[in-house]
Amino acid sequence: MIQNKIALTLLLLLLLAGLSVGAYAEDGYRLWQRYDLVKDAKKLKEYQGRVQQVVIEGSSPTLTVAKQELQQGLQGLLGKNIGNSNMLKQANSLLVGTPQNSPAIAALNLNQQLGSVGKEGYLILTTTVNRKKATVIAANSDVGALYGVFHFLRLIQTHQPVDQLNISNAPKTQHRILNHWDNLDRTVERGYAGFSLWDWHKLPDYIDDRYLEYARANASIGINGTVLTNVNANALILTKPYLEKVKALADAFRPYGLKVYLTARFSAPIEIGGLKTADPLDAQVQAWWKTKAEEIYTYIPDFGGFLVKANSEGQPGPQNYKRTHADGANMLADAVAPKGGIVMWRAFVYDNEVPEDRIKQAYNEFKHLDGQFRKNVMVQVKNGPLDFQPREPFHPLFGAMPQTPLMMEFQLTQEYLGQATNLVYQAPLYKEVLDADTHAKGAGSTVAKVVDGTLHNYQLTGMAGVTNIGNDRNWTGHMFGQSNWYTFGRLAWDHTLTSEAIADEWLRMTFNNEEKFVSPVKEMMLQSRETLVNYMTPLGLHHIMGWSHHYGPGPWVDKKHRADWTAVYYHRASAEGIGFDRTASGSNAIAQYFPPVAQKFGNLATCPEEFLLWFHRVSWDYKVKSGRNLWDELCHRYYAGAEGVKQMQQTWNAQEANVDPERFRHVKTFLSIQEKEARWWRDACVLYFQSFSKRPIPAGLPKTDNTLEYYRKLEPKFVPGI
Amino acid sequence: MIQNKIALTLLLLLLLAGLSVGAYAEDGYRLWQRYDLVKDAKKLKEYQGRVQQVVIEGSSPTLTVAKQELQQGLQGLLGKNIGNSNMLKQANSLLVGTPQNSPAIAALNLNQQLGSVGKEGYLILTTTVNRKKATVIAANSDVGALYGVFHFLRLIQTHQPVDQLNISNAPKTQHRILNHWDNLDRTVERGYAGFSLWDWHKLPDYIDDRYLEYARANASIGINGTVLTNVNANALILTKPYLEKVKALADAFRPYGLKVYLTARFSAPIEIGGLKTADPLDAQVQAWWKTKAEEIYTYIPDFGGFLVKANSEGQPGPQNYKRTHADGANMLADAVAPKGGIVMWRAFVYDNEVPEDRIKQAYNEFKHLDGQFRKNVMVQVKNGPLDFQPREPFHPLFGAMPQTPLMMEFQLTQEYLGQATNLVYQAPLYKEVLDADTHAKGAGSTVAKVVDGTLHNYQLTGMAGVTNIGNDRNWTGHMFGQSNWYTFGRLAWDHTLTSEAIADEWLRMTFNNEEKFVSPVKEMMLQSRETLVNYMTPLGLHHIMGWSHHYGPGPWVDKKHRADWTAVYYHRASAEGIGFDRTASGSNAIAQYFPPVAQKFGNLATCPEEFLLWFHRVSWDYKVKSGRNLWDELCHRYYAGAEGVKQMQQTWNAQEANVDPERFRHVKTFLSIQEKEARWWRDACVLYFQSFSKRPIPAGLPKTDNTLEYYRKLEPKFVPGI
Repeated sequence: MIQNKIALTLLLLLLLAGLSVGAYAEDGYRLWQRYDLVKDAKKLKEYQGRVQQVVIEGSSPTLTVAKQELQQGLQGLLGKNIGNSNMLKQANSLLVGTPQNSPAIAALNLNQQLGSVGKEGYLILTTTVNRKKATVIAANSDVGALYGVFHFLRLIQTHQPVDQLNISNAPKTQHRILNHWDNLDRTVERGYAGFSLWDWHKLPDYIDDRYLEYARANASIGINGTVLTNVNANALILTKPYLEKVKALADAFRPYGLKVYLTARFSAPIEIGGLKTADPLDAQVQAWWKTKAEEIYTYIPDFGGFLVKANSEGQPGPQNYKRTHADGANMLADAVAPKGGIVMWRAFVYDNEVPEDRIKQAYNEFKHLDGQFRKNVMVQVKNGPLDFQPREPFHPLFGAMPQTPLMMEFQLTQEYLGQATNLVYQAPLYKEVLDADTHAKGAGSTVAKVVDGTLHNYQLTGMAGVTNIGNDRNWTGHMFGQSNWYTFGRLAWDHTLTSEAIADEWLRMTFNNEEKFVSPVKEMMLQSRETLVNYMTPLGLHHIMGWSHHYGPGPWVDKKHRADWTAVYYHRASAEGIGFDRTASGSNAIAQYFPPVAQKFGNLATCPEEFLLWFHRVSWDYKVKSGRNLWDELCHRYYAGAEGVKQMQQTWNAQEANVDPERFRHVKTFLSIQEKEARWWRDACVLYFQSFSKRPIPAGLPKTDNTLEYYRKLEPKFVPGI
Repeated sequence: MIQNKIALTLLLLLLLAGLSVGAYAEDGYRLWQRYDLVKDAKKLKEYQGRVQQVVIEGSSPTLTVAKQELQQGLQGLLGKNIGNSNMLKQANSLLVGTPQNSPAIAALNLNQQLGSVGKEGYLILTTTVNRKKATVIAANSDVGALYGVFHFLRLIQTHQPVDQLNISNAPKTQHRILNHWDNLDRTVERGYAGFSLWDWHKLPDYIDDRYLEYARANASIGINGTVLTNVNANALILTKPYLEKVKALADAFRPYGLKVYLTARFSAPIEIGGLKTADPLDAQVQAWWKTKAEEIYTYIPDFGGFLVKANSEGQPGPQNYKRTHADGANMLADAVAPKGGIVMWRAFVYDNEVPEDRIKQAYNEFKHLDGQFRKNVMVQVKNGPLDFQPREPFHPLFGAMPQTPLMMEFQLTQEYLGQATNLVYQAPLYKEVLDADTHAKGAGSTVAKVVDGTLHNYQLTGMAGVTNIGNDRNWTGHMFGQSNWYTFGRLAWDHTLTSEAIADEWLRMTFNNEEKFVSPVKEMMLQSRETLVNYMTPLGLHHIMGWSHHYGPGPWVDKKHRADWTAVYYHRASAEGIGFDRTASGSNAIAQYFPPVAQKFGNLATCPEEFLLWFHRVSWDYKVKSGRNLWDELCHRYYAGAEGVKQMQQTWNAQEANVDPERFRHVKTFLSIQEKEARWWRDACVLYFQSFSKRPIPAGLPKTDNTLEYYRKLEPKFVPGI
C-alpha cells in the first residue's frame, strides 16, 4: 500500500516533469553539450560503476565550473546524482585537480607526466589512489583540469571505454582564438546567424546567460581567446564606456579560460585621442597607445591583446605614414608587452592601385619583413592567398617567414560557402591546408608544422577562426554550422585529428551514437565541401560570386571601381579558354612557393586538377584526366555538385526516425534551400561560361532551369551579413 | 517486489525527466502561456473533476490549434492527460465548437446567445449535454472557439472557479492589430528587443517555430492582425520575391486567426512600378495599385490591407501631387475593397515648414476631410497629439471626425519610456486616454466610445499597437515588456478591463498565483508609469529626450535643422518660467478640443496639474496644489520619480523566494539599470532647468551626482532602435 502510494506519487511527479520535458525545445541551443542518458544499458552500467563520486579538492572559479560541469554531465549521462566531495572516500572516484590544490594528486607523483602537458594540458588516468581504484584528471592549472573534465565527459558522450585510461593531452597551438567580425551596432560582417551576441547597450550591467554558455562551449573544445570586435574596427571600443563593458564580458569568461582581445583601429589616436597623427614612429602616438594599453589592463588584468587589419580594404595603417607593417605592429606590441599581451597583425593586404596579381601582394608585403617583428607579434595569415574561397592552394607565406610566428586564419562563417543555408562541413578544407607540404625545409614541411611552431621553432603559436556565431537560438544559423565551430576548436587544439574523427565525435555528441545515423550522416558531412566546390567553383575557379554581398553566383561581375573585386579579373574566360595564368608566362605567382611546390603547380601536367584554373589558362578543348575536354568536364562538375546536394537530401531524409522532429525539419528545410541554390549556381555558371565556349552542354545532362539573362537579372536584396 | 521495481523504474525515469526540467531555462520564452501544475490541491481537484474529456467535433486548422492548446494546457495545469474525443461520452466533458461543425452544440439551441457575440465572440457555459454535466465553449466561428479556449485556460491559470460558468464575450473593436516597425534588413525602428522576428532571407522556405509561437501568443489575447513592415516603408515588400515570403508567414498565421497587413510606400508605383508619378488621381497609378492588390490577393486570399504613413517625416504622399490624404487613402481603399481589405491611414503628420504648433497640425490636416474617406478606410490616430510621450492629453481628433472611423494607435515599444531597460506597465497610460472624455456628444463621450464605434456608429473599428517584440529570447527585451503586449491585446478586445485586473491576470499567468507575490508586484506595476513620468517629464513637460535616438534626457537639445525635433521648442524655459502656452494667448491648441475640455485645459485653475506645462506657460514662482512654487515642485517630482525606482527595487528584491532565479535576476538587473537612468534624468533635467530658474534645489533633497556639463557631454553611442 505504501509502495503503491510512492509509485503513484512518483507517477504524478513524473508526469509533471515529463510535461516540462515535452516543452523543452530541440532548437540546437545545447550544441554538442548534451548530456542525455547513455542508452546502451551495458555501457551505462559500466560508466555508473566507474564513477561513483567526484572529488575536487581546493576551490577557484574555474574549479567551480569544472565541478558544475561534472555534476550536470554525469547526472545526465549516467542518470544518477553523483556525489561531490572534497575528500576521496570510496573506490571508483573521479579525482580532479592539480598538484598545487589537491594533496591527493600531489601524492601521486605525476610530475614527470605533467611536465609534458604544459600549462593547459592534462592527464586522465585509471589508477589507484589510497589503494582505491580511481580515475584521475590531473593538470598543472585549473583550466587544464577543466579541459580534462570536458575530455572525460566526451568519452562517455561518445560511448568510449573509460576503464583503462592513460591519456596525456596538450594543445598543439597556444592561442586558439575566435575572431568576431561584430560591429558595435550588433550587425555582424559576413554573419549569417542573426546578429551579434554582444548586447553592448545593456552591458556592463546585464550579463546574458548566453555569454556563459558561449564561454562554456568554447572551453569544451579548448578555445582560449576571443576577439570581440570586427577587424574593420571602430575606435570607440577603446573608450572608457566600452572598456567597462568589455571588462564585464572578460569577467564572465575568465573562469572558462577564455581571454578577451580587441581589434585596434590604427587611427584611434586621432579619432579618440585627439592627436594629429597615428604615425607609429611618432613618440606621442606611441605614448598614447602605451597609456591606452595600461588603461585597458586596469579593467582587464589578463587582456589578451590586439588584432589589427591595417592598410587593407580602406583601413588605415602604418603605410599611410610610409612606415611598414612591422613598424605598426611593433608599436602596439610594445604597448601590451609589459602585461604579456600579444598583437595579431593580419597579412590580408592588397591594393587595387598595385598592378600586381592580387594573390601575390600579401607575400610581397610581408616576406621581406621577416625578423623585424617584436617577439609578441604574430602575423595572421588566411589559409589561402585570396580570400576564403571554397578551395584555394595554401598561402605561400606559410614556410616563408621562419623568424616570424605565423598564425592561421580560417573562416568558419560561410561567406563564400553558401552563407546562411548551405551544409558544408569544413574540416576537410582546413585539413587540406594544414596537411599541405610547403617544402620550406624539405618534404614534410607541412603548413601544420609551420603553424604549430615545430618547423621554425616559433615561440608563439596560434590559430584564429572567424566565427559563424550569432544570436540565432541555435548559435550558427544552420544546425550543421555548429560542426565548424566544434571543428575549429578541436583542430586548433590538435591538428592531427582527422576530419572523419571530428565529424564522428560531433555527430555522437550533438545527435546520437547510433551507427545507422552516425555512419551515413558522417559520410554526407565529409563529402559536403567537395560537393559545394563542384557547384560553385570547380577545377580551381575562384571569386565568381555575387557582387558585394557574395551571395549566389556572379561570374559576370565586371566593371566595378576595383578590378580585383570583379569576377572577370579572376576567371578570364574568352572564346579561347579560361583560367588565370599564374605560371612564369603569367603573373608567376607560383614563384612564391618553394621550388618543389612551384614546379608541381606550375606544370600543367602535374598541377592538381582542383587547382587547374587557379594557376593555368587552359583552352576549352584541353583534355583533363577524365578524358573529357575542359568544357565538358566543367559542365559535368557543376552538374555533379548540384546532384550531390540531392544525395545529401536523400541521406538526411532517411534519418527521420533517428532525429528529433525539430532538428530533422530544420536541416531538411535548409537542404531543400541548398538544393535550389546549387542549381542556381550550376545554371548561372554553365550558361555564362557557355557564352564564351560556344559549346553545347554535354549530352545526358538535364537542361538548365532558366536563361542566363534571368540569372543575371536576379538581384537578391537585403542579404544578411552587411 | 514488483511494486519496488515499478517504483525504482519510475524513480529512474523521474530523475531523467527532472534533469531535462533542470535544463529548461526560465528565459521568458513561454510568455504568459505557461501551463504549470495548479499548486492549490483543492482547486486542482476541482478542475480535474470538472474537465475529464475534451470533445471537439469537426476539424479545421483552427480547431486543430484549439485542440492542441487544450491538450497541452490541461495536461500541464491539471497534471493528467485529458482524453480527446469527437463524441461526448462522459460527464464533465469540455465541448468546443460551433453550431455548424458540432451537432452537439447545434442541439443546444444557443442561437440567440450566439447572435450577440458576433463572428469572433464566444460563450462558455456550464450546462447539461445529453443529460451529462458539461462545459461548453461555443462560438460562431472556429476562431471564436479558439478565443474561448484561451479564455477557459486563463480561468484555470488564474485560479478562477469554473464550475458555474455563464460567460458571453465578444471583442469591442474589430481590428486588433500589431504594427511592426520592422525593416527588411531586420533592424527595427524603435525596437529594443533585439532584431526583427522576420528572417526574410530564409523565407518563404524556412518557417521558424517562433512564428507559430508568436501567432499563438497573439491569438491567446485576441489580436487578429499584424502589419509586418515599418511605416517608414520600403516598396520592395510589394515585389514578387517578398510577396512569396509574406504568403508563407500568412499561411503560418492563418490557423490562429491572425491576418497579415503590409505598409504601402506611397511612391511604390514609381519605385517598383516604373511609372513617372504616384499621383493618386492618375488613372495609371490607380490601375497599378489595383493590379498590385490583385496580385497580393493571389498569394494571400485573406490579406488584411495596407497601413500608410504619408507626407510625414519625409515619407512621400498625396500632397506631393497637391492631393489630400483622402485622395491617397481612397485610391488604396479602392484597390483592396473588392477582396474586403482595409486601409489604415495614419494621422501622424506634421511639417516643420508649417509655422503652426506641431501638435495642432494633424487635426488641421484631417478634421476637414471628415466624410471624404471610403468606407474601408480607418484613420489611425496616436493616443496623444505629439508622439507617445510619457504623458499626453488625448488627441483632439478623437470625437472630431464622426463620419470617419478613427483607429487608436498605442506604442508598446518604449521609445520614450526608458527603451530597453525600464519597467513601465502601460495599462494606466492606455486607460487614461481611453477613459478621457471628449465631450463630443456631451459628457461621457469617452475616447473609448469613439474607438469602439459606439459614439459615432462607426462601421469599422480598430486599435493598433506598435509592438515591442523582437528576436530577443524573451520577446520583449525586458521581461515586464511582455505585460504591455498582453495589455494591448486585452484592451483592444475589451477596453473596460481595469489596469489592475489586467496586471493581476498577467502576473498570475506569467509568474504565479501567490498573493504574497501578486499583490506587491501588481502595486509596483500600477505605480510604474507615474514614477517614470516623474523622473522624465513631470507636470506636463514633453519631448525633452536625447537627440535622434531619444535615449536619456536632452532638455538642452536645440539648433537642429528642424525646430520641432528640438526640446527647447517644447519646454521654452527661460528666466521667467517654463511651459508651452497653448491657450488662446498662445498657440490656442486647446481650441481643437470640445468646449468643456478646452475650458478645463485652458484655465490655469482647472487644468489638471499633470498637463500644466503642456498647456500653460508658468512662472517659476507659480504656486501649485502642493503649496510649493513651481520650481520646488518640479524638483520634488524629479526626485520622487528617482526615489520611486528605488521602491520598485525594494519590492522586487523582496520577491527572491517567489520567483525562479533566472527571471528574478533579469528583472533585478534591469531595475538597477533603471535606477541609474532615473537619476540621470533627474539630475540632468533639474540642473538644466536650474540654469534658467536660478533657484536652489529645495532643502532636504540630495545633491545631484554630477554637473550639468557632465550630462550634456554624455553622448550614448549605438543606442538600439536605429
